[in-house]
Amino acid sequence: MPHSVQDLLAEGVRRTDEALERLLPGPDVLPHSIHRAMRHSVFAGGKRLRPLLAMETARAVAGSLPAAAADLGAAIEMIHTYSLIHDDLPALDNDDLRRGKPTCHVAFGEATAILAGDALQTLAYQTLSQLDCPADAAVQIVREVAIATGTGVGGSLAPGMIGGQVMDIEGEGQKPTAELVEAIHRAKTGALITVSIVSGGLLAGATAKQVAHLRAFGERAGLAFQIVDDILDVTQTSEELGKTAGKDTATEKATWPAVFGLEASREQAASLIRDAFTELDEFGPAADNLKAIANYLTERTY
Amino acid sequence: MPHSVQDLLAEGVRRTDEALERLLPGPDVLPHSIHRAMRHSVFAGGKRLRPLLAMETARAVAGSLPAAAADLGAAIEMIHTYSLIHDDLPALDNDDLRRGKPTCHVAFGEATAILAGDALQTLAYQTLSQLDCPADAAVQIVREVAIATGTGVGGSLAPGMIGGQVMDIEGEGQKPTAELVEAIHRAKTGALITVSIVSGGLLAGATAKQVAHLRAFGERAGLAFQIVDDILDVTQTSEELGKTAGKDTATEKATWPAVFGLEASREQAASLIRDAFTELDEFGPAADNLKAIANYLTERTY
Repeated sequence: MPHSVQDLLAEGVRRTDEALERLLPGPDVLPHSIHRAMRHSVFAGGKRLRPLLAMETARAVAGSLPAAAADLGAAIEMIHTYSLIHDDLPALDNDDLRRGKPTCHVAFGEATAILAGDALQTLAYQTLSQLDCPADAAVQIVREVAIATGTGVGGSLAPGMIGGQVMDIEGEGQKPTAELVEAIHRAKTGALITVSIVSGGLLAGATAKQVAHLRAFGERAGLAFQIVDDILDVTQTSEELGKTAGKDTATEKATWPAVFGLEASREQAASLIRDAFTELDEFGPAADNLKAIANYLTERTY
Repeated sequence: MPHSVQDLLAEGVRRTDEALERLLPGPDVLPHSIHRAMRHSVFAGGKRLRPLLAMETARAVAGSLPAAAADLGAAIEMIHTYSLIHDDLPALDNDDLRRGKPTCHVAFGEATAILAGDALQTLAYQTLSQLDCPADAAVQIVREVAIATGTGVGGSLAPGMIGGQVMDIEGEGQKPTAELVEAIHRAKTGALITVSIVSGGLLAGATAKQVAHLRAFGERAGLAFQIVDDILDVTQTSEELGKTAGKDTATEKATWPAVFGLEASREQAASLIRDAFTELDEFGPAADNLKAIANYLTERTY
């Protein structure tokens, strides 16, 4: 097992990229344009945070890294990437740069970008259906991922990723309330982070009780990460971020610092992470990697 | 079992719409806009051909209609609808009318239409993961559906639905060859029709040999249906079609009559259906409904 956070992050990127390289059609597979567009965005230099959380959760539950964990992580990264491609489109956020590179529609045109996003979602579910694990675990993972990335089914359930994107668009230009900002953050980014953790546990055969603790950990940590992202958008330059800084403020997006102020936001992120860690007591030292990653992500320079 | 094709079609619509009504979030579930956009396109008056094929295949294999067949059909219809919503977008076909109604982006704006398409794909996989059937059948269905609707993985495999859309876009304005037209038709519409039939069989516990026959039936029948659609685009008025007639010709889309002529296209469709029917010999009279539907669809007025 790697010892430093830097080693963990590097190993996560390596394993995820190896799986993505194997699972995505090559740039010369017909039709070329869409496969090149998919690869452009998938290999644009992501930190592979979600796959890393899936893999390290699976390792914490199983005691060693399950063979299928990298493919699970790759599938989640495909979904993350599809959501970024569509979010960047002119009709949505209209972003030209992502991680310092031209966004998919800038490089390949809007039609191809829309279809490349669609195809990444499709390939993610194909990948989940081909995971080397018992069929009932695979079906549970498909269900958890779909619910976490949907619009929210039934009034009582929290909306998923797409629901969060819609709330974000609808909220633009309005004065953000604390309630709305938290709902958007939990849905738009928190749900996918949480399901990365939950599905890693399911892949490793976690009990229902373990899954409940992992879900609670993911919900708290996911919200903390997004608060930190909001803080970074205010405090860092475009060069440091690899995207247009201050954009959230300029478009009056619902952000945490806009509602609570910078200092309170920092305190709340730290408090959420402390609460999140108590959910990992169940797993003892096996969860040390997960804690190290969560600490690293909430202690980024800001 | 219903006796006439009209009864079969009406029952297919009724069962599919009941399942869709139950599975789609209501128009007042937050966030409103996306759920209303999803329902606008899903309930725009489709013939529910693909769900009907899934249900009647499941009935042919199992001897009676499995309880989960309507939900399977509804999931496939969600995927069909998502592909139509995205295909109609300004960056793709730029269509204002679909089945005589405003397309999703005309009624709800582009951003919501893009996300509504995304969410319908997501909800389709959630629905498949919740089918009341053994987990290994559900996993196989997810895999078959994802492969059929993707871009084609590995050079030797035929591309799926999205691959067909890409080829269609790339081929516009070029003189269509017979090879290209067949490849686009098989991918863009044939693959989803085939997987409707295959997944109906899998839901009902079909053997590998039965699945192979169903797949061969679906491939031939699916191509025949698309040839008939191309013929109708040439010979019918916009009012009869419920969409802009002659649009394929005007944009020099790759169509069957453009390559083979009208009369030869009719003969080829009939010949494909005859070949398709020999694949159903395996099932005896249990496949009579499937044959009746296939006959009806290829004998539409033209």
